[in-house]
Amino acid sequence: MLPVVVVHGGAGQIPKENTEVCCAGVREAARSGYSVLTSGGSAMDAVVEAVTMLENNPVYNAGKGSVLNVKGEVEMDALVMDGRTLDSGAVSAVRGVANPTQLARMVMEKTSHLCLTAEGASKFARAMGVPEVPEESLITDYARMRWKKLEPGSNPVECQIGKIGTVGAVAVDVEGNLACATSTGGILNQMEGRVGDTPCIGCGGYADNQIGAVSPTGHGEAIMKVTLSRLILFHMEQGKSPEEASDLALDYMKERVKGLGGVVVVDPKGTWTARFNSLQMTWAAAQQEQLHYGLYHGEDFTEPI
Amino acid sequence: MLPVVVVHGGAGQIPKENTEVCCAGVREAARSGYSVLTSGGSAMDAVVEAVTMLENNPVYNAGKGSVLNVKGEVEMDALVMDGRTLDSGAVSAVRGVANPTQLARMVMEKTSHLCLTAEGASKFARAMGVPEVPEESLITDYARMRWKKLEPGSNPVECQIGKIGTVGAVAVDVEGNLACATSTGGILNQMEGRVGDTPCIGCGGYADNQIGAVSPTGHGEAIMKVTLSRLILFHMEQGKSPEEASDLALDYMKERVKGLGGVVVVDPKGTWTARFNSLQMTWAAAQQEQLHYGLYHGEDFTEPI
Repeated sequence: MLPVVVVHGGAGQIPKENTEVCCAGVREAARSGYSVLTSGGSAMDAVVEAVTMLENNPVYNAGKGSVLNVKGEVEMDALVMDGRTLDSGAVSAVRGVANPTQLARMVMEKTSHLCLTAEGASKFARAMGVPEVPEESLITDYARMRWKKLEPGSNPVECQIGKIGTVGAVAVDVEGNLACATSTGGILNQMEGRVGDTPCIGCGGYADNQIGAVSPTGHGEAIMKVTLSRLILFHMEQGKSPEEASDLALDYMKERVKGLGGVVVVDPKGTWTARFNSLQMTWAAAQQEQLHYGLYHGEDFTEPI
Repeated sequence: MLPVVVVHGGAGQIPKENTEVCCAGVREAARSGYSVLTSGGSAMDAVVEAVTMLENNPVYNAGKGSVLNVKGEVEMDALVMDGRTLDSGAVSAVRGVANPTQLARMVMEKTSHLCLTAEGASKFARAMGVPEVPEESLITDYARMRWKKLEPGSNPVECQIGKIGTVGAVAVDVEGNLACATSTGGILNQMEGRVGDTPCIGCGGYADNQIGAVSPTGHGEAIMKVTLSRLILFHMEQGKSPEEASDLALDYMKERVKGLGGVVVVDPKGTWTARFNSLQMTWAAAQQEQLHYGLYHGEDFTEPI
């Protein structure tokens, strides 16, 4: 069944006018990730490729297109994890970089740390020669319009309804190695310096060659409270399938902390799933020359790659 | 058996001249936390009280006495978690506050977020009326001496040998509620903006009334890779005792990612343990008018409270 890549473009309700482009973007990202895998690239290469494409696509809440914080600024979080070694890299509240996921990978590969935050992350990016991009280049008209429409004092959690667009990917490569990547602009109207689930290992993603890999999306604070990604893998360690484990964990998150969201998951054999308890989640999976994709519950459209 | 509080002052090797004061400090913190509990205070009140005392004590690597980063500056991380609701609060890479744990509690109680980082955390502290303290007041002569002795380009992980002094506490109150708190200055010579395990929920601590509470110390990056706190609680969910669960998880961390460290753990009945696979860990536990404490493996000294 190997290799496989599964991508999501966020849970939550997508504005009608964006549905087509959001669904097209994840299909394109899954195709690109799959092409990396079939060319002999690693699972890590594939997830970073797929998520980079979603960061560059302005319809998602990551990289260009990120939601704005309470001050109207962009602060981004990203995480990658390598299932071979449990090595991981993350950045939180970083500004002025086009592709936080690539920077997270550099944290993993070029430092002895796992996470760099805020100005420290920006300084590291400069030291690595990552081009600094002007904040304006990350802000779309749509993001600014949504921010401007807010009432003073709007609650970030409530603002979030209507667009929860964290992006992510999981993959298994031809050698059976697993990886995950997740990237986000956070939540609309968030406080300056708010860090959500994404850069928090075990919450915003986890990958272990011995168990599986997960990338989640949804209410970040709820995902954190239940360490959603690691929780799903614990269920898989107990013998549950990726689908059963995801449903158990998402049900628990809803019941215990009233959180909604979704996940993409793979196991070491290449079994994959995309599950959510929100209204929608854009997702796409590429395996055995077939592309699967969907948006609403129960959907699994296919087309040849 | 309720109530109980268990405190640690860090794993790793304590300089001989500091052994006495390090052991005295955790005993004092455990007594104070216990006094909060026997006066009807909550588990959260008790862990914040105990960790605040350790932050104010210059012999530990948290608050005053924090190790210095590569630039000779102090950046601190802290986490609290409330086992009733899974609510949590954290700050990462925060500067200029005396008690990061109290600030983490404010993030939990006064915002809709779980974690604030760097300058955003400092701004929140100012908005909450938390006094800003000069960096000099957090830096001890010992911390500056250790930083100055470094060779240029010293590896932060290797520098760490000799002092891994993250502090933390777990507690169960008379109502059976659980909480944890962890606080750290990070690792000597860390990059600016490095975030370790401490503020990362599931890694630097976890508390769930239905399972138990954990506060760890040790190699932060290794603790993150295995999400140590949540891992211990998963073992307890599978029927292991706090001691068995801790040993399983610490053995796994050593084997899988070569990480050393230690933990203090409680379960909802008030069963507690303090376990470590490092050479030493200063710890103290207060329960049923008895104070237990130790430093080396196998030690469990007792005295009346």
